Amino acid sequence: MQHMKKPHIVIIGGGTGTYVALMGLKKYPVDLTAIVTMMDSGGSSGKLRDELGVLPPGDVRQCLVALAKSSKRLRDLFMYRFEEGELKGHNFGNIFLSAMEKVSGSMESAIEEVGDILRIQGKVVPVTYTNSELCVELENGETIIGETHIDEVKEKLNRPKIVRAFLKPHAKANKDALSAIQTADLIIIGPGDLYTSIIPNLLVDGIPRALQKAQAKKVFVLNLMTKHGQTTKYTASDHLRDLEQYLGKNVIDYVLLNTQKPAMEALEWYKQYNEVQVKDDLETTPYTIIRAELLKDKIVGKSASDTLKRSIIRHDSDKLAKEIIQVINKII
Amino acid sequence: MQHMKKPHIVIIGGGTGTYVALMGLKKYPVDLTAIVTMMDSGGSSGKLRDELGVLPPGDVRQCLVALAKSSKRLRDLFMYRFEEGELKGHNFGNIFLSAMEKVSGSMESAIEEVGDILRIQGKVVPVTYTNSELCVELENGETIIGETHIDEVKEKLNRPKIVRAFLKPHAKANKDALSAIQTADLIIIGPGDLYTSIIPNLLVDGIPRALQKAQAKKVFVLNLMTKHGQTTKYTASDHLRDLEQYLGKNVIDYVLLNTQKPAMEALEWYKQYNEVQVKDDLETTPYTIIRAELLKDKIVGKSASDTLKRSIIRHDSDKLAKEIIQVINKII
Repeated sequence: MQHMKKPHIVIIGGGTGTYVALMGLKKYPVDLTAIVTMMDSGGSSGKLRDELGVLPPGDVRQCLVALAKSSKRLRDLFMYRFEEGELKGHNFGNIFLSAMEKVSGSMESAIEEVGDILRIQGKVVPVTYTNSELCVELENGETIIGETHIDEVKEKLNRPKIVRAFLKPHAKANKDALSAIQTADLIIIGPGDLYTSIIPNLLVDGIPRALQKAQAKKVFVLNLMTKHGQTTKYTASDHLRDLEQYLGKNVIDYVLLNTQKPAMEALEWYKQYNEVQVKDDLETTPYTIIRAELLKDKIVGKSASDTLKRSIIRHDSDKLAKEIIQVINKII
Repeated sequence: MQHMKKPHIVIIGGGTGTYVALMGLKKYPVDLTAIVTMMDSGGSSGKLRDELGVLPPGDVRQCLVALAKSSKRLRDLFMYRFEEGELKGHNFGNIFLSAMEKVSGSMESAIEEVGDILRIQGKVVPVTYTNSELCVELENGETIIGETHIDEVKEKLNRPKIVRAFLKPHAKANKDALSAIQTADLIIIGPGDLYTSIIPNLLVDGIPRALQKAQAKKVFVLNLMTKHGQTTKYTASDHLRDLEQYLGKNVIDYVLLNTQKPAMEALEWYKQYNEVQVKDDLETTPYTIIRAELLKDKIVGKSASDTLKRSIIRHDSDKLAKEIIQVINKII
C-alpha cells in the first residue's frame, strides 16, 4: 500500500480564532500552516513594535504556542503576561520574539528559533514582513489608522460603518505564505475579527490572487458574534460580502456556520458592546453551507492579567476541527 | 580497563569571573557545578527582584550561558540587553528566568527549564533560595545595605574599609549547593569581586562548614586587580585574610596567582577608580602557591549596551582552566 502524504491545511487569520482552530486541528495527522496578520499595533505587541522597531509579535506567538509540543510549563511561559513593574502588560512570548528578532536580525529567524524551542508541529508564516499599518475608511469619510484604534472602539454604540480597509504602506506577500497557499489541500479562512484578523491578510499584495489561483478548496469559518465597530448588525451574508470585497467572488467553496445557541448570560455580557449572534441568512448562495454545533460549552472567563478584551463565546477547538477534517475527508 | 568517573569541579562565585572560568573549564572532560551568589540588587536583576518579587537572576543567567551547548544565537539572546523603550537596560535572559520563576513558582524550576533550552553541560546552583540582602559595615561604623550600593561606590577615591559583611535576613544554604560541595573533587573559589561575588556565598548558613568538612582540595583564584570600595590597596595576603574571616583558616589548599603584567593603557584606565594590580606578597604561607600567566591578551572593551562597568583586565579562560586542570591531574 502506498504511504499517503498528510493533507496540508493552511489557516489564514491571527488572533484567538486561529489559536482555537489550530488547537483542534493539531490533534489530527495533517500538515498545518498558519498564515498570520502582522498589523497588530496595540498592547504588548504595539509597544514592542513602536519602541524596538520590530514587527508585532503577538499573533505569531499565539500560533506558535497553539502548535507547540513542548511542556505545558513552556507554553504557559510564552503566554505569560507580566502583572507588575515596568514589564506590566507585556507578554513574555512577545518579548522573546522581539529580542530574538533584534539578535538574529529578522522575524523569520526569530520564529524559527522559537519554533524549535517550543517544538512546534507545523509552520507559522507571517503574511508579510513589511511593517504596515492597517487603516480603514468609515462611511462618514473619516480614516482610522492603526489596528488597535480599529479594534478598540471609543464610541460605545454607534461608530460609522467601515467602507474600505487598506494598508499603509503597501505590503509585499511573504513568499512562504504564497507557496503555502499554492501547495495547500485545504485553506481555512477564519474564524477571527473580520477587519482586524482576517481582511488584513487579504490586503497584502499578492495574497488574494494566490488564493484565487490556489487548487485547494477554501472554507470560510463564520464568526459566532458580531464585532462592535467592525461588523455591527452583520448577518452571515454581510460577512461574506465584505470578505469578497477583498478576496474576490467565487473563491470560497464552503461556509462553516454555528447553529448552537450561546448561554443567555454570555449573550447578556455582549449586549454592552451592542454585539449579537451572527444571523444565519445564507439560504440561496453559491457556497456549500455546513451547519454544525461549534460552541465551546464552558464560558471562557476574563483573566485579571489579560489587559485585552477577550470573547467569552468561543468556538470549541475539537468541534471546529472535526468539521474541517470532514471536509478534508470529502475532497481527498 | 575501568571507566574513570569524570572529576567533579565546583566553582563558587557569580559574576564575570565565574563566567570566564566556566568558559575555559567546559572544554575539558569534567563535571562542572557553579554555586552562585543570589544577592544581586542592582541593574536589571535588581529591578526584576524589586518589581516582580523574584530572586535576582543575573548571576545564574551568566553561568547558564557559560555552560550552554546551544547555538550561538540562543546564547547571544540570553545575554542580549534591550537598548530602547520600557525594556531598556533589561537583559533578556534575566527576564526569561524571572518570567519562568513566576510561571513555575520557583527559581529552581526556572533554572531547570532554561538549562534544558540552553542544553547546558553541568549544573548551576544558587547558593541559597532565601531572598537576602548583602550588607557591609564600614570602618567608620556606617552600614551599607544592598549589593549594588556596595559595588557602585559613590565616593570617588576614599571609602572607608569594610570591616564586616553579613546577610539580612540570614540565608539558608540550598541543599544542592551543600551536596555539590560534599561530592566535589576540586573546589574553586573565585575569581570575582571579593565582597560582592565571593564572600556573599560564604555568608550563607552552612556553606563555610560544608567547605571546611569537604574532602576536595580548595583553590582560591586571586583577582587580578584591586576593587575600589572593596579591596582598595589590598595585596594577595589581604585578600586571603578577608576570605578566611568568613571561610575559616586552613581551608584553602592552593592559591592561583597571575604573574603577567597588564598593558599600560589598561592599567591607566583603572587608575580613575584607584584600582591597581594585586601585589603578590605571598612568600611564606600555608598554601601551595601556583604562579602563572593568566591574563587575557586582548583588552575587553565596554559595549554600549552594557550599563554596568566591566573590567577590561580579565583572566583568560583557557589559561585559567589549564592551571586548574593541572591541579586536578596532580591530586587524582
